[in-house]
Amino acid sequence: MGRRIAPLLLTAALLGSASTAAQPLDERYRDVAGQIFGAALTDEEGWEKLRYLTTHIGHRLSGSTGLERAIEWAVESMREEGLENVRAQPVTVTHWVRGEESLELHAPVRRRLAMLGLGNSVGTPPEGITAPVLVARSFDELEGLGREKVEGRIVLYAVPWTGYGGTVVYRALGASRAAALGARAALVRSATGRSLSTPHTGSLRYEEGTPRIPAAAVTVEDAEWLAALAEDGVEIEVTLRMGAHFLPDATSANVIAEIRGSERPEEVVVIGGHYDSWDVGQGAHDDGGPCIAAWHALTLLQRLELRPRRTLRVVLWTNEENGLAGAEAYHASVAGEIERHVAAVEMDMGIERPVGFGFGLAGIDPESGDPRYETGYARLLEIARLFAPLEADRIRRGGGGADIGPLMRSGVPGLSLDTVGEHYFDWHHSHADTLDKVEPRDFRKAVALFAVMGYVLADMEERLAPVEPSPLNP
Amino acid sequence: MGRRIAPLLLTAALLGSASTAAQPLDERYRDVAGQIFGAALTDEEGWEKLRYLTTHIGHRLSGSTGLERAIEWAVESMREEGLENVRAQPVTVTHWVRGEESLELHAPVRRRLAMLGLGNSVGTPPEGITAPVLVARSFDELEGLGREKVEGRIVLYAVPWTGYGGTVVYRALGASRAAALGARAALVRSATGRSLSTPHTGSLRYEEGTPRIPAAAVTVEDAEWLAALAEDGVEIEVTLRMGAHFLPDATSANVIAEIRGSERPEEVVVIGGHYDSWDVGQGAHDDGGPCIAAWHALTLLQRLELRPRRTLRVVLWTNEENGLAGAEAYHASVAGEIERHVAAVEMDMGIERPVGFGFGLAGIDPESGDPRYETGYARLLEIARLFAPLEADRIRRGGGGADIGPLMRSGVPGLSLDTVGEHYFDWHHSHADTLDKVEPRDFRKAVALFAVMGYVLADMEERLAPVEPSPLNP
Repeated sequence: MGRRIAPLLLTAALLGSASTAAQPLDERYRDVAGQIFGAALTDEEGWEKLRYLTTHIGHRLSGSTGLERAIEWAVESMREEGLENVRAQPVTVTHWVRGEESLELHAPVRRRLAMLGLGNSVGTPPEGITAPVLVARSFDELEGLGREKVEGRIVLYAVPWTGYGGTVVYRALGASRAAALGARAALVRSATGRSLSTPHTGSLRYEEGTPRIPAAAVTVEDAEWLAALAEDGVEIEVTLRMGAHFLPDATSANVIAEIRGSERPEEVVVIGGHYDSWDVGQGAHDDGGPCIAAWHALTLLQRLELRPRRTLRVVLWTNEENGLAGAEAYHASVAGEIERHVAAVEMDMGIERPVGFGFGLAGIDPESGDPRYETGYARLLEIARLFAPLEADRIRRGGGGADIGPLMRSGVPGLSLDTVGEHYFDWHHSHADTLDKVEPRDFRKAVALFAVMGYVLADMEERLAPVEPSPLNP
Repeated sequence: MGRRIAPLLLTAALLGSASTAAQPLDERYRDVAGQIFGAALTDEEGWEKLRYLTTHIGHRLSGSTGLERAIEWAVESMREEGLENVRAQPVTVTHWVRGEESLELHAPVRRRLAMLGLGNSVGTPPEGITAPVLVARSFDELEGLGREKVEGRIVLYAVPWTGYGGTVVYRALGASRAAALGARAALVRSATGRSLSTPHTGSLRYEEGTPRIPAAAVTVEDAEWLAALAEDGVEIEVTLRMGAHFLPDATSANVIAEIRGSERPEEVVVIGGHYDSWDVGQGAHDDGGPCIAAWHALTLLQRLELRPRRTLRVVLWTNEENGLAGAEAYHASVAGEIERHVAAVEMDMGIERPVGFGFGLAGIDPESGDPRYETGYARLLEIARLFAPLEADRIRRGGGGADIGPLMRSGVPGLSLDTVGEHYFDWHHSHADTLDKVEPRDFRKAVALFAVMGYVLADMEERLAPVEPSPLNP
């Protein structure tokens, strides 16, 4: 029924009546969305930017020349494209380097095992750490064995994959939990559901008061093999060598560019991802693809001369992987005017086929029926109808991201650009996170979604959610 | 309708009328199949054998101590189980060893690339071969470039996956085709459709009259990356180091065991797979799982005291991967009595979920309607009805295998135990071909299928196909 009157309203819109608050958002923005979809789905240049980043720059760990080059290239390219207020916002970041590393099995057979040291890990002495291996399937099992069994050993956590959340705690905390019982080093089964003999790195976090011992990821294959040997009573001994260490903190930057708002330029919608990556693969899914998609969304809007009422800003945050200094620096830079942030959209679960957006408001349970949440949710459902032709019209209750976390905690409504998430953790933090894993059509859809969602949130009369962001918000 | 009278016939069978030629094979063997399925699907010991082979012995390249240990263990275990005529049939095999190997990228950046030398490759000088890389997407492209462009270079075949058949030719023949144009070494994109930074080895074949140059597989990721760099005009230089060489031929063996036939013991049905593997991973899918499944089929039949009229023989062939000497030696040993081989069943495409069998007769197009083929095919369809509850009742037109090839060329009807074949080439010839990739339920189904098919072919009155095997058969 609403559909029947749409042509009339559309005509009204074309005649210059730019918006009608009573009119659903999808009807108000259908022609704009059509322009953007047409441009995004036939675009070649966004993909070329991603191809350049992954092929010619590659991975981009905080402090690395790769990340520096990526930042310089983005700033320069954004300026050439004519984006506004392009700048590199300086951020001091940690500078961890992997160094040379290896894991040698000595018993029951001699073999070099595939491995990746964990980010933030300390190194070993140059001669390595040689010790018998104790296999545990959980923290409970390890702690049940106690100090007598653990002391002097290298603990291998052979923890079955139960999804990222349930498994990653062993990567994050395993070293300290083992060290608390006297272990000399820790090995973790890579946090992934599918392996083709592929180690996955990622950061660990040392607990205060326990010795800092080196830690590395091994492949699912080797973890299962060693666990089976141990189950059969076979003695296992390895030498772990890691040259990992910290260099002095480095200067990095968040890359920022805008399309300035036509009516309320001081109000801002932020879209983006994190520009840094681990020091393996190309950071194609994590998080290069999403960064380029957000950036290119602005590029297309600028080419189409679509200038929203509010400012639409892309931020490519630095140092998400091992510090979050970029997210904190950005937040600090806007903390005095946080109420001007209308919404923040982040994409950081790879760039597989987009399915829609997640939506979160800090301090509000999205299932609670809270009217502040429901108002925003209803508006997003209206906008999402525009995405039905791309099969990307799902609005999930709950959403956010590490880089927009500080903004959200200050009350800014947060969205995540969601994908089908089928293979992300197969590639995540590994040598396999490379351009050949990205489908160009998925990338183009993400550009389209970033552009339309960003444009509508920045242009619509009302703010997305009636929460007033403030530095004091929970 | 046929179903309606089955209980009567079954009763007749139970009363001692062992078979009725007019009765469909599935009706004749339904109770036997039920016994076998019940035993196979609840069995733990077959899996334990596979677990032992993969965990405690591991990979088994011809000439290696791994293969020797595997052969000794099988012969000993088969004897302990009470199988009959257990023997190790001596086979002289090639003894290729990989040695130390590496691939270092020097330009445009310095990086060590994942690689695996190809089986049968010659090595490099100790200092390696350092040369610029020339990327080709096909033989046509390479040969179009000609000697002027190829000479002195290392050729990288970055050939997209189009299935194993279309891709593996670059692994097999790429070195010689490049050498014919003056290349110093060859690199091939691994022959796989899915990669997580995983190189896949496999054998190459040098053509007579061209220099023998070393060759290695690189990952899909690196092949695509280097191809993209080359496309953009970036100069690429690598050093390939390979210690690959041949040792003097070694003595290996086919492992053979039987359940002797009760009425026509001189007539034989063979089931099996190849016991050797490449020198990476555990040879779990290729072809350890199928070998253990065939072996354990006999073990279960023997426990159930199900002795068919003809002899049912398991053969674990040696040296399939780099020579086929095991298949040839077995064939030679029975060549004088080839007509006594009623059928041969091989499983060598991994041990994912079984879906049925393929059926081939040498020299007969399975689609031609030839009555000799159709008679056998109709009998297999009858037998396959027994497999419907396991969703494994497909009889494919065409089938065979490398190890039963010589038998088939002498006229023996050949079957392959087919699987869904979804991920086999993800693991094939790589570090990822390990036990964690095998589903115990798939393995148990394969045991059940080997046992029922083997038993019925060996027990039924008629021979599977009315082709008389003979050494002179096409």
